Amino acid sequence: MDEKNFDEISQEIIALLDAKKYMSARDRILSLKEVDMAEALEEVIERLGLECAIILFRMLPKDVSVEVFSYLPSDDQLAVINVITDKEIKYIIDELDFDDMIDVLEELPANIVNKILEKSTKEERKQINTFLNYPEDSAGSLMTPDYISLQKDWTVGDALAHIKRVGMDSETVYTCYVKDHGRKLIGIVSLRTLVISEAERPIAGIINEDIVYVNVYADQEDASEMFKKYGYLAIPVVDNEMRLVGIITVDDIFGVIEEEYNEDFERMAGVLDSSDAEYLDIGVFKHVRNRLPWLVLLMISAMLTGGIIRHFETLLSSVISLAVYLPMLMGTGGNSGSQSATLIIRGMAVGDIEMRDALRVFWKELRVSFTVGLILSTLNMGKILFLDRESIWVAATVCISMVVIVTMAKCIGGLLPMFAKRVGIDTALMAAPMISSLTDLVSCLTYFTLASVVLRL
Amino acid sequence: MDEKNFDEISQEIIALLDAKKYMSARDRILSLKEVDMAEALEEVIERLGLECAIILFRMLPKDVSVEVFSYLPSDDQLAVINVITDKEIKYIIDELDFDDMIDVLEELPANIVNKILEKSTKEERKQINTFLNYPEDSAGSLMTPDYISLQKDWTVGDALAHIKRVGMDSETVYTCYVKDHGRKLIGIVSLRTLVISEAERPIAGIINEDIVYVNVYADQEDASEMFKKYGYLAIPVVDNEMRLVGIITVDDIFGVIEEEYNEDFERMAGVLDSSDAEYLDIGVFKHVRNRLPWLVLLMISAMLTGGIIRHFETLLSSVISLAVYLPMLMGTGGNSGSQSATLIIRGMAVGDIEMRDALRVFWKELRVSFTVGLILSTLNMGKILFLDRESIWVAATVCISMVVIVTMAKCIGGLLPMFAKRVGIDTALMAAPMISSLTDLVSCLTYFTLASVVLRL
Repeated sequence: MDEKNFDEISQEIIALLDAKKYMSARDRILSLKEVDMAEALEEVIERLGLECAIILFRMLPKDVSVEVFSYLPSDDQLAVINVITDKEIKYIIDELDFDDMIDVLEELPANIVNKILEKSTKEERKQINTFLNYPEDSAGSLMTPDYISLQKDWTVGDALAHIKRVGMDSETVYTCYVKDHGRKLIGIVSLRTLVISEAERPIAGIINEDIVYVNVYADQEDASEMFKKYGYLAIPVVDNEMRLVGIITVDDIFGVIEEEYNEDFERMAGVLDSSDAEYLDIGVFKHVRNRLPWLVLLMISAMLTGGIIRHFETLLSSVISLAVYLPMLMGTGGNSGSQSATLIIRGMAVGDIEMRDALRVFWKELRVSFTVGLILSTLNMGKILFLDRESIWVAATVCISMVVIVTMAKCIGGLLPMFAKRVGIDTALMAAPMISSLTDLVSCLTYFTLASVVLRL
Repeated sequence: MDEKNFDEISQEIIALLDAKKYMSARDRILSLKEVDMAEALEEVIERLGLECAIILFRMLPKDVSVEVFSYLPSDDQLAVINVITDKEIKYIIDELDFDDMIDVLEELPANIVNKILEKSTKEERKQINTFLNYPEDSAGSLMTPDYISLQKDWTVGDALAHIKRVGMDSETVYTCYVKDHGRKLIGIVSLRTLVISEAERPIAGIINEDIVYVNVYADQEDASEMFKKYGYLAIPVVDNEMRLVGIITVDDIFGVIEEEYNEDFERMAGVLDSSDAEYLDIGVFKHVRNRLPWLVLLMISAMLTGGIIRHFETLLSSVISLAVYLPMLMGTGGNSGSQSATLIIRGMAVGDIEMRDALRVFWKELRVSFTVGLILSTLNMGKILFLDRESIWVAATVCISMVVIVTMAKCIGGLLPMFAKRVGIDTALMAAPMISSLTDLVSCLTYFTLASVVLRL
């Protein structure tokens, strides 16, 4: 099933619903996979409204509807919860995988959560409450308590019989966890090892005790780093006493990686954390609050640049055409600096560049920027002399400034992120906006100082 | 095993090697996991040189050394290959997983590859050549031919016995593939299903025929999208005739995702594709070539901004303090525009924002930017009147310009990426550098036009 195919089917479903051909729409949507059904349902909500989508949702087989629900984005889940009956809510919550249920409960208003908890058993209530209390970005918030645990004194045959009995989802079954009597995790056995071992062999003989695990309160990014590094399908989550409390499966890590990168992108553009809400769902004032602090900070820096110009006002008023080249010098300085900063920030993020490489980075940026500066200067020399017909002194000022500015900008752009890391500031903050404000200041100062020397004023 | 622990052990290994205590260094490195051994070996190469690392590498048990080799970055692999004997090379190549071997061969110089191919059987040679020919970013270049294939007419018991016989790696064993006699893929059976089914049950009854697959020539990003969407552990790769040629496992997808994001980051900073080479390994002239084109393009745009200033030279020379506020207006315009562009580009990348949302984006940016502009103007009004002691007319010009510039910048920043997508240009190119050059032009024009009206010159 490819993307094109899906778009067609989803258009057909909308057309059928619009023509009130509900049974045909139902047959059409049932030809999709659950995750695609959820996407189609999203389209229906957006194009035909929630009521129409609910009609279709209720026509799905019950077990399918729960799966589809789990794939809906959280705002649509909430919208659905708000219009279906309590009985339907209870059914969905009961049938969802534990980690999906926790995700849903986290988004629901407290009164609905309480209503759901009232109907659960005491044991369930306790477990749900524990899970709801893990911090939002912790490993604990990602995990599921649905894993297979084996006893150390079982045989391979016992283990396989146990797995047959408890069933389990596909992502959680492939690694089994062996605990001691105090619930401490002592090792893992993969389903693969169980399948290729003789049935009468004791589990104790095939346990892998050299395990990678993550603490329940660790940052979820630590967990995602482990998945990237070791390529495992699941990683156990333990508490401070090494007791197994759940597992994280690889399919939940893609979301974490996406979040991480989005945070980096936003910080690099000087936008405060939008806490995972979608752009269009964030209100105008929240958008303003997220963007204003950086703009004000950068504006103050630009005011300092203005102060430098004021300082050189007499010089500027006698050679007014100096102002003509200012945007070009500042712009090129800013762009040069951002290029270097981005390369270094990414290099550090993926581990290609370490703190001890600072000198090598400096040396490389120095040579690159000098070459780039010379080439850009040459282009400018030609333009200023032959197109703008300015004096050789103005041309010389601009060209020398260009080399100095590009070199300084690239060295600042290359080293500042490393300095930020050293003193523990988020490196992504040292990206484009910050670097260009700083280089603007430096560019302006360099340009006017050089001009006052070269033009002998 | 946590990060801190690893750093300590790796420092110990270096100290031991430096003191020529090779056996102790070997014992120490063997306490690590293979992927960490590779990282430690990288450190040794960097700190003590290749020869010392090779001594340690040769002291590892043979099977361990192959695993460690597979985790080394490709430049270090090449360095190792260049100094070890042909016999050692042959052993490593033979023992590597097929997909890792192909990755190594792709990086090796042709003469070494030919030497290796000479020693392989005809069958191996054919398969290696086929794999080496898949384009670099294709699904084919990611896949491994090591998968488990089952016959449709087998029973569950036959299948499990077959798996026991062929063994297989942990990541490739969990989904088994059922082919017809023409090698066409007809369905999959998970190891989980096999384990929980009765041994005498025929495979035909438990096949899942509704499969997600990817074409061998599809872009590797298509494959990574499928993994993100469906959360599978492996996806089959087929040729144009639906014949199964290999599988991609989830652990190979993290690398693809990282590559994708790096490309986006680089494009957003106006750096040409660095084709996966590490920053420090790229030569000075290659760095210059990657960065110069964008700098020149943006410089030309900044020259146009300079042209606008030249046009208003008379106005500027009569009110020279107008120049003081130019960097602040241009800078704030650029930053406002980049913020919006980044949010929209990311929103489109993760699917939160679609083309049909253009009007909603415009309306949201209009309100956000007007509010932001008003606040920034108020701050400036105070500063210009009471700190700078400029005339009310200059203050009015700057403040009105600020509102207009921020509003225009945010609308340009919000809509240009969407326009780029519509006409099929990479949206990441419409990020910070491009947007700030454009807004510089607009800012400058707005400011001076408004000034000539307000100051009635």
